[in-house]
Amino acid sequence: MAIPHANAGEVISVGPLGAALNAAITHTIVKTDGLEVIRIVLAAGKKLPPHQVPGEITVQCLEGKVDFFVGELKRELTAGAFLYVEGAGEHAVHALEDSSLLVTIVLKHKS
Amino acid sequence: MAIPHANAGEVISVGPLGAALNAAITHTIVKTDGLEVIRIVLAAGKKLPPHQVPGEITVQCLEGKVDFFVGELKRELTAGAFLYVEGAGEHAVHALEDSSLLVTIVLKHKS
Repeated sequence: MAIPHANAGEVISVGPLGAALNAAITHTIVKTDGLEVIRIVLAAGKKLPPHQVPGEITVQCLEGKVDFFVGELKRELTAGAFLYVEGAGEHAVHALEDSSLLVTIVLKHKS
Repeated sequence: MAIPHANAGEVISVGPLGAALNAAITHTIVKTDGLEVIRIVLAAGKKLPPHQVPGEITVQCLEGKVDFFVGELKRELTAGAFLYVEGAGEHAVHALEDSSLLVTIVLKHKS
């Protein structure tokens, strides 16, 4: 199912999906030249292997519980937990419960 | 009270402050060359008059209820509501209840 991106000023819910979480999929909320905002949905046990993006990111756990790895650091995130990752910082995720994360990526362009 | 900014990988709570909200103040969570993340705290009745910043922003209501104005548009935001504002978009806030908002600003530099 294609989910349209938000237009400027359009209100999108980033609250917990609750019972709807197990039917939800990762989707992009905002995508512009400068910014990308994604809700990442991970079922318990799923992993995002180590990866990196050029720009800075912020991660907010909306529901569930994940281990979030920033390089060698492991952080357990539950609802309301937020962290920042530097541009090109290697990170990985391991969902301990059915979870969703709000991820904001500052897109970095060649200047 | 000075609140230190988050370091990369440091976990910060952006959950509702609840009873602690009325003693809280607006504070910066992350500030880098490319990104600024702020928790804005507004008591019921308080207003942020129309203003703009060069870069794009996202706004997430963490608790309470505000009217958020994007140009002529008025949007009521409650916990879990999220919106995007284009760079240089004029916006204003009127808190209908004691509220806190998570605001992410993509800092725009002269190239």
